[in-house]
Amino acid sequence: MSYAALEAHHKRLANLRHTEAIVSWDEAAVMPAGGGEARADALATLRGLIHELATEARLADWFAAAEAQAGTLDAWQAANLREMRREWTRATALPHELVEAQSRAETRSEQAWRTLRAENDWQGYLPHLREVVALKRQAAQALGAKLGLEPYDALLDGYEPGARSRDFAPLFARLRAFLPSFIERVVERQQRDVVIAPRGPFPVEAQRALGLRLMKQVGFDFERGRLDTSHHPFCGGVPQDVRITTRYDAADFQKSLMGVLHETGHAKYEQNLPRSWLQQPVGAARGMSIHESQSLFLEMQVCRSHAFLVFAAPHLREAFADAARAEPAAFSVDNLARLATRVRRSYIRVDADEATYPCHVVLRFELEKALIDGSLRAEDVPDAWDAAMRELLGLSTGSNHRDGCMQDVPWPAGLFGYFPTYTLGALTAAQLFRAARDTISDLEAHIASGDFSALDAFMRERVWSQGSRLSTGELIRGATGKPLDTAAFEAHLAERYLGGASA
Amino acid sequence: MSYAALEAHHKRLANLRHTEAIVSWDEAAVMPAGGGEARADALATLRGLIHELATEARLADWFAAAEAQAGTLDAWQAANLREMRREWTRATALPHELVEAQSRAETRSEQAWRTLRAENDWQGYLPHLREVVALKRQAAQALGAKLGLEPYDALLDGYEPGARSRDFAPLFARLRAFLPSFIERVVERQQRDVVIAPRGPFPVEAQRALGLRLMKQVGFDFERGRLDTSHHPFCGGVPQDVRITTRYDAADFQKSLMGVLHETGHAKYEQNLPRSWLQQPVGAARGMSIHESQSLFLEMQVCRSHAFLVFAAPHLREAFADAARAEPAAFSVDNLARLATRVRRSYIRVDADEATYPCHVVLRFELEKALIDGSLRAEDVPDAWDAAMRELLGLSTGSNHRDGCMQDVPWPAGLFGYFPTYTLGALTAAQLFRAARDTISDLEAHIASGDFSALDAFMRERVWSQGSRLSTGELIRGATGKPLDTAAFEAHLAERYLGGASA
Repeated sequence: MSYAALEAHHKRLANLRHTEAIVSWDEAAVMPAGGGEARADALATLRGLIHELATEARLADWFAAAEAQAGTLDAWQAANLREMRREWTRATALPHELVEAQSRAETRSEQAWRTLRAENDWQGYLPHLREVVALKRQAAQALGAKLGLEPYDALLDGYEPGARSRDFAPLFARLRAFLPSFIERVVERQQRDVVIAPRGPFPVEAQRALGLRLMKQVGFDFERGRLDTSHHPFCGGVPQDVRITTRYDAADFQKSLMGVLHETGHAKYEQNLPRSWLQQPVGAARGMSIHESQSLFLEMQVCRSHAFLVFAAPHLREAFADAARAEPAAFSVDNLARLATRVRRSYIRVDADEATYPCHVVLRFELEKALIDGSLRAEDVPDAWDAAMRELLGLSTGSNHRDGCMQDVPWPAGLFGYFPTYTLGALTAAQLFRAARDTISDLEAHIASGDFSALDAFMRERVWSQGSRLSTGELIRGATGKPLDTAAFEAHLAERYLGGASA
Repeated sequence: MSYAALEAHHKRLANLRHTEAIVSWDEAAVMPAGGGEARADALATLRGLIHELATEARLADWFAAAEAQAGTLDAWQAANLREMRREWTRATALPHELVEAQSRAETRSEQAWRTLRAENDWQGYLPHLREVVALKRQAAQALGAKLGLEPYDALLDGYEPGARSRDFAPLFARLRAFLPSFIERVVERQQRDVVIAPRGPFPVEAQRALGLRLMKQVGFDFERGRLDTSHHPFCGGVPQDVRITTRYDAADFQKSLMGVLHETGHAKYEQNLPRSWLQQPVGAARGMSIHESQSLFLEMQVCRSHAFLVFAAPHLREAFADAARAEPAAFSVDNLARLATRVRRSYIRVDADEATYPCHVVLRFELEKALIDGSLRAEDVPDAWDAAMRELLGLSTGSNHRDGCMQDVPWPAGLFGYFPTYTLGALTAAQLFRAARDTISDLEAHIASGDFSALDAFMRERVWSQGSRLSTGELIRGATGKPLDTAAFEAHLAERYLGGASA
């Protein structure tokens, strides 16, 4: 039974990927710097080996035989077979020497970036970027040739199956047309708001305790996951043991808190994937735009809403009792809501609000596409960055590379083709929230009372439990009743930022 | 060049073992309990795969060709070839299904033991022990047949290459004859000592900070290692990134502190192995009795000495300022030295003093040898344990399995044949310390001033830098001038416990 053999093989692969996920988490969250060189080597060998197993010659026969028996498979098995073939097709497009070389270059580049960014050392970082891009272009060309795709789309397809630049280009164009004047109006309007910044320090331990408390309330399962600290916040690990990270700023609790809730959105998706399929491709999260929709749903749609802050404000006051006593008005629900929805044109993507965020993504999408196409060279990235920042957000980065083209971890880590999924995820999150509001009566009252059970049931049924059974398009249509567009996102922005006083 | 091919192959294996070491550390130190089942599966697959690679058929030809060219190899390469063959011979004795089955059973057994021990649930634990022993006996028989050894010795040889039960039986017999009356005399003598127990609580954070401080002072390299918390203290990770763990008791700082220094002894060995050979078998630590000698050298010979406590006492008083103010006499050097050298017949091995410790080891050695020989069944372990405890230490465990046969992690984790290395390590540590004292003038003054550079230079030259180049016997003879015996250990005990007032 070839299908069964394929399942057994993929269980083995899932087990090895489990070890890879934990070792990667360790590398980012706890490894001392001196262990980095040996770790880069170790991860490269492990990934090379996984790639060898994922491309074993005997799989070709198993696929042929399993597809010949496809009529005997149920819907989940058939979808699993489709996903297995998808992975296999991608894996066999790359020689495993290239996979190992990429892993080694990317782990080293990310490690080097951590200190070089802090030192604003573009010249030190450039050779790393150059090497990572050169290897990624090789991979993109090999994948593109195999899949019949443009090289950049071949990378994109690895993060968001089925996504093509030309398909979402109209959505991005619409945002480009809509956002600049919208941002202008919001910034002007918010100038009239009185916003009181809570004054710290906010001790890291108190921030962490508050984060853990709210994670628990919104449904993170600590029996199967952890919260730790890392340079760049992420959600890693495996569905059975999800590792999210954050970083703390003693002067500002909001960044870490919203970051933790964002990663918790990712984590809830992982923790609620279909349990009986966890070790098979069909049991995995659908793709990164759906993944981002889950983090943005929780952070942007739920946790930055006035209703959520009604629930959260007492917890904040308790966690930061000194600050709240010193300035009670800073911890009023209205003030917290104004803080959570402040729109500002700024340099740093990960700190950006939801209105300016798509501008950061469009910039990166255009630049990384040009890097992969070969029309932009690594050494010209700072100038291109500066030009795009001026155009999109009216800001110049100049030689402040730390807050410019060196600010983000995805490129140092080799994640080219990933950025568009952030904005596709934001559009999806808005569309999902609209559908949830149409389905659950009094949704805001639920949120204000800290009760997320109806929302979770909605998401479990329509998204989480589906794993990768459906395509992204089918999943979105099934969950929201229509294909992805920008309408719900635009309506959400208009309502939140131009609707009531500041709600 | 077959030798070069073997080196490349072993570099690959070392990289995979690096990932295994990190995933194992994670399992013990940070993994949430709910991740355990998936982790057991993942580790089993990884270990099975490492075993497959370690036994690839093509290696036989490479070994034959490399050994034919042995004349062209330098001393390190020749020793490396010998160690590679040793590993290969052991690995090929076991079918990889058995390796995976052992890994799965042992990971699950250890996970189950963590809660079952706390609940004193022998009946719940018995099936795990039975399965682990059954698989271990299969492995021992297969290894024994291949190596021409008794099954138990075949396991022992995996932890301490070249060690045979019959060779150290006379040493163990000598300890059995010497210790009971010695312990009797010491206990009687110490009854006259006035010992003041420092009164806590000793906050965990203060204990941790003190541990980190002393680790740094005695030479732990934090650029290439960490201190964390786990159920059972251990030293894991890889030489480039050594992970030691401890556990804290707010009522007693001494246990954790001495535990940390003990593991630091292991860690210093790993961190000082020959760097250019770290990814080859010859670059690894020689064996577990030398490893234990390093932890016991630091803990027992150095850190429990009066001289070390002269150095450490001010740090202790600073760390536990409230307790030291409340009862200054408890923090005098003499009192701390009496606390650090208290001899008591007790149930728990890991808390035992150095005089009673060998009794715990002899007990476990006799029982595990019988379990592997088949002359003792798993269900009869509690009775056998109770009988041996009465005979060796005059204590009855009865149905207190938690503090009896369920107290230790090695059996739940499948480490049969490991226990003797603790006592061989204690004898080696005493012999090494005697040699160091003969070599370094004024050694005690160095220690009392917190200067470990001469001791480190001694150990680096004679032990750490040697990796696995020499056999254990050659290493001990080279470092101390004679083969291992009990004389230095006995003299150390007599001097410390029957010599001066309490030094």
